[in-house]
Amino acid sequence: MSTEESRRHDEAAIRELIDRLVQAVRAKNIDEVMSAYAADMVAFDIVPPLQFVGTKAFRKPWQDVFETYRGPIDYEVRDLSITAGDDVAFSHSLNRISGALKNGHKTDTWLRFTACFRKNDGKWLITHLQASVPVDFAHGKAVLDLKP
Amino acid sequence: MSTEESRRHDEAAIRELIDRLVQAVRAKNIDEVMSAYAADMVAFDIVPPLQFVGTKAFRKPWQDVFETYRGPIDYEVRDLSITAGDDVAFSHSLNRISGALKNGHKTDTWLRFTACFRKNDGKWLITHLQASVPVDFAHGKAVLDLKP
Repeated sequence: MSTEESRRHDEAAIRELIDRLVQAVRAKNIDEVMSAYAADMVAFDIVPPLQFVGTKAFRKPWQDVFETYRGPIDYEVRDLSITAGDDVAFSHSLNRISGALKNGHKTDTWLRFTACFRKNDGKWLITHLQASVPVDFAHGKAVLDLKP
Repeated sequence: MSTEESRRHDEAAIRELIDRLVQAVRAKNIDEVMSAYAADMVAFDIVPPLQFVGTKAFRKPWQDVFETYRGPIDYEVRDLSITAGDDVAFSHSLNRISGALKNGHKTDTWLRFTACFRKNDGKWLITHLQASVPVDFAHGKAVLDLKP
C-alpha cells in the first residue's frame, strides 16, 4: 500500500473501533467497552480521581455509569476528527450522552472526547483518553448544558 | 537515523516544545504560547465554550488567564508521557497552575492535560489539546482541589 492508502486504511480502522465503542456504551456491554483499550491505558475521565491507570481501574467508572441509567444509554458522536500516523493516532469529537436515570432524572450532556491510539501487531487500541466539560470558575460549577 | 533513534529525537523535540510552552505561560508571553500551536488547532479548554477552533479564537482565553493573575503564574508539569510516531504524536500530563489573582484570591489547581501533535516540514506543533478537571455530578461541581 502507498502511504496515503495506508493512512486511509488506518483511519478507517480507528473509525470502526470508535463505532464499536459507541455501540458497546449504548448496549451497556462492559466487556466490549473494555476491549477498545490497551491494558496499560491512562484515562482522564469526566469523574474523579484525576486519572485512572490501567483497564482494571477504569472498568469501575463505566460500571457505575451503566448502573446509573435505567434503560439503554443514548450516545452520539459528532465532529469526529481522526489523525493517524504509522502506529500512533489521535481523535477528537463532541459526544452526547443522554437518557433516563434510575433516580427519575433525565440527563443530556455534551462531552469533549479526545482518544489517543497505538497500533501493535496491526491492531489499534486506545492507550489514553480524556473526557470532560468546561468549568465556570466564577461559580466553581461544571458547565453541563453546552450545545455544539 | 534508525527508527528507534528517530523516535527518541521526536520525543525530545516534543518535550522541548512543551518546556517552551510552560516557560511562556509562566512569563505570560502570549506570542510564545501561541507559537506552540498549529493555526487550525482545535482546543477543548478548561473554560467554555465546548471548543475553540483556530489560534485566532484560542488567543483570547489565554489572555484572560494572564489578565487574572497579579504576577507571574506558577505552572508545573508532572507525570509527562510522550508517544511519538513518524509525524503524529500525543502527550499527557498532570499540570498544576497556581498563583495570586488580582482579586486577592490564591489559586492552586491540578489539571489533566492532553496534547496532540503533527510534524510538518520537520517541525512539531500542537494541533489539538484538552485541559480539564473532573466533575462531581451529584453537586454539579467542578472538582478543583484534587492532588495527584
